[in-house]
Amino acid sequence: VAVRPARLPTEPPRGMRDILPDEAELRDWMARTILDVYRAYGFRRIETPALEHIDLLTRGEGGENEKLIFKVLKRGEKLDLADVRSEADLVDLGLRFDLTVPLARYYAHNHAQLPKPLKAVQIGPVWRAERPQKGRFRQFTQCDIDILGVQSWFAEVELILATSKALTDLRLKDLTVRINDRRLLTAIARHCGFDDDHHDSVFITLDKWDKLKPSEIAAELTRAGQSASAIAEMIKVFTEFKAEGELPVKMISRTVRTDEGIHAWQDLKRIIEAVRSADGSIQFDATLVRGMSYYTGPIFEISSMRFPSSIAGGGRYDKLIGKILGQDVPATGFSIGFERVASILMDMSGGWRRPRKRVALLFDKDATELHHLLIVAEKLRREKHDVSLEAKGRKRGAQLAALEAQGFDGFADGPDGELQWFGTGR
Amino acid sequence: VAVRPARLPTEPPRGMRDILPDEAELRDWMARTILDVYRAYGFRRIETPALEHIDLLTRGEGGENEKLIFKVLKRGEKLDLADVRSEADLVDLGLRFDLTVPLARYYAHNHAQLPKPLKAVQIGPVWRAERPQKGRFRQFTQCDIDILGVQSWFAEVELILATSKALTDLRLKDLTVRINDRRLLTAIARHCGFDDDHHDSVFITLDKWDKLKPSEIAAELTRAGQSASAIAEMIKVFTEFKAEGELPVKMISRTVRTDEGIHAWQDLKRIIEAVRSADGSIQFDATLVRGMSYYTGPIFEISSMRFPSSIAGGGRYDKLIGKILGQDVPATGFSIGFERVASILMDMSGGWRRPRKRVALLFDKDATELHHLLIVAEKLRREKHDVSLEAKGRKRGAQLAALEAQGFDGFADGPDGELQWFGTGR
Repeated sequence: VAVRPARLPTEPPRGMRDILPDEAELRDWMARTILDVYRAYGFRRIETPALEHIDLLTRGEGGENEKLIFKVLKRGEKLDLADVRSEADLVDLGLRFDLTVPLARYYAHNHAQLPKPLKAVQIGPVWRAERPQKGRFRQFTQCDIDILGVQSWFAEVELILATSKALTDLRLKDLTVRINDRRLLTAIARHCGFDDDHHDSVFITLDKWDKLKPSEIAAELTRAGQSASAIAEMIKVFTEFKAEGELPVKMISRTVRTDEGIHAWQDLKRIIEAVRSADGSIQFDATLVRGMSYYTGPIFEISSMRFPSSIAGGGRYDKLIGKILGQDVPATGFSIGFERVASILMDMSGGWRRPRKRVALLFDKDATELHHLLIVAEKLRREKHDVSLEAKGRKRGAQLAALEAQGFDGFADGPDGELQWFGTGR
Repeated sequence: VAVRPARLPTEPPRGMRDILPDEAELRDWMARTILDVYRAYGFRRIETPALEHIDLLTRGEGGENEKLIFKVLKRGEKLDLADVRSEADLVDLGLRFDLTVPLARYYAHNHAQLPKPLKAVQIGPVWRAERPQKGRFRQFTQCDIDILGVQSWFAEVELILATSKALTDLRLKDLTVRINDRRLLTAIARHCGFDDDHHDSVFITLDKWDKLKPSEIAAELTRAGQSASAIAEMIKVFTEFKAEGELPVKMISRTVRTDEGIHAWQDLKRIIEAVRSADGSIQFDATLVRGMSYYTGPIFEISSMRFPSSIAGGGRYDKLIGKILGQDVPATGFSIGFERVASILMDMSGGWRRPRKRVALLFDKDATELHHLLIVAEKLRREKHDVSLEAKGRKRGAQLAALEAQGFDGFADGPDGELQWFGTGR
């Protein structure tokens, strides 16, 4: 069918996108692979609606993301356009900006019917009205696992092992887990002499340790008004941490003096030992921070030397559920950067191959006996091929080229034709 | 963890719902099964964003659904609360109410990169602000296949065979396809003497043929102001259609006189013959109407004697894409009632069984050697069990009962314990 220019703008909304068949298939395979692994590790899928009450989404747990909510207009009698003073008069719902705030509400609402502890896996879209930029979309998929109701460091071991396995099954290679603990960071910041209420700001700068020179770190902290002596000690401490290597027990014993900090270090050593005993690659990183302010304990990331940014991240957040439920529930979670991984696999040549072959079964509309054609198609499907019946075009060469360009692996020329595979590069 | 009453309302938004693990798992299995079948039949998954421009959603193609759109507030500078005259000043986006209008936009925008013809499968949520009622939700999943760019009746054969196979693989039994054609309905309505611009209204009443008595049908048409002679002829005609049975050639030749109607009947006979040749159950139903007014050719439904309402429905809509693209593209689609099927399978005892066994591997936090525990868990996973590590509780009997209630199939008492299966009913 020849197509004239469209009469209307046909783009998807700004910052959102249409997914073409090849990528849709890759994403399906990713989701299946991830869900299969997490199920094998005892996680159970849950789902919440895309929309939540606007009050839930704007209570402060979402940090900066709360400024990016797509808000939904009230409907029917609830909407009174004659008396609009603020946005609050107009909206009652919003699209979720993450899967963690909805998880907290879900747990509060359904805990009586849920397993205890709850090992949950969620995968689904979230929405943020961010300024569009390369690789960032206003609708994107998140994929989180969370363990609710387990205080022990063992929960972190399960999160890390399951997520490492999921990423390995996605054929990502050379993965390393880096781990730290917010309680250690707090203890070290105190040791350096930063005021407690400056810690969050100091950590944001520390997070750039791998990208900036020590002098640049110091300059940023100075601009933020931190004390010169604390800055100097901090640069010294983290330089020595990095120099001591693997398990910097000397630096820990010099800088971590609080009970909470010492306890955190014990936990970290146990987690590292357990993950290594299961052949996982994991290392302590004193300068790992992670963005969200709600973390309270171990924090972790997975990265690969092959890619610049991390591909999964998470941590313990023992105080977040309590803000919605009214009572604290220990909780820890790990999130795979689904869009990041999809983009890596799309770019990687030979990174992903469709598990089943796609075959075009050509037929002559006027000459082919239909019953016979359908039987042959069924036979090929039973042999694990995906079979599309395609009416023969007038130009055979052009049609075969088009089929190959569409990603077909091969074709049969009529129901009695032999299966032929395209090209050699396939 | 004991939980006190929540501090905040924790319900999901009105008419929406949280999906608990058992149902989430069933739905995942359904989606996989359906996608696997459609892929085997040559369909390719595509995805569009949940949000669309409000102008696209309110152009009339959505019929009554357009009144039920969740509309999204403009953001930033675009929103001027000082000068609000109508909703149009406030909103720029809306949540999609179906998958067909977005498909038309997607095709218009991406056709240069898409296979021709396009055989597309979509599965995803849609939103409608309907009055909540049993079994109806404001967010629900739709699952559509569509063939764009094929004028031939052969497209309908592919839709019907693929959808029948998908429903069979979902273990639904005793399925029958009923088929009719809008062109036949039009020809028969003309034969009866109804004005052309009354046809849509007459069809809405005819759609109730299986539920109402002929006298009730007649009464409804009379109330709608139709002519008495046309009503009398219609009751007579459709009664005789039903009486003639299977392929009512006598009634067709008496009532269908237009070229278009005769052509439609030839198509229907070819579709029926082809589906039967592939062992499908299909029958002509002169009173089948289907709701949407955009249908232009064959219309079809799948139902089972075991359930009151139909579980899949679709039809040809050759004029819809053109309204957005600016040029007509022949199109036909079939939609599985995903929520309906999920609810049938949830209610059906033994209707669905998890493909893999769920096993709890109990461990003693203080006594178990971790490395050994992790190795045993991996071994069980390789044996195709889903394994959750569960810390031993204080009360063994209560813990085992709780695990069984959670749907575990069995447990092992420590890494060296033997695998034991729960109950006999499992």
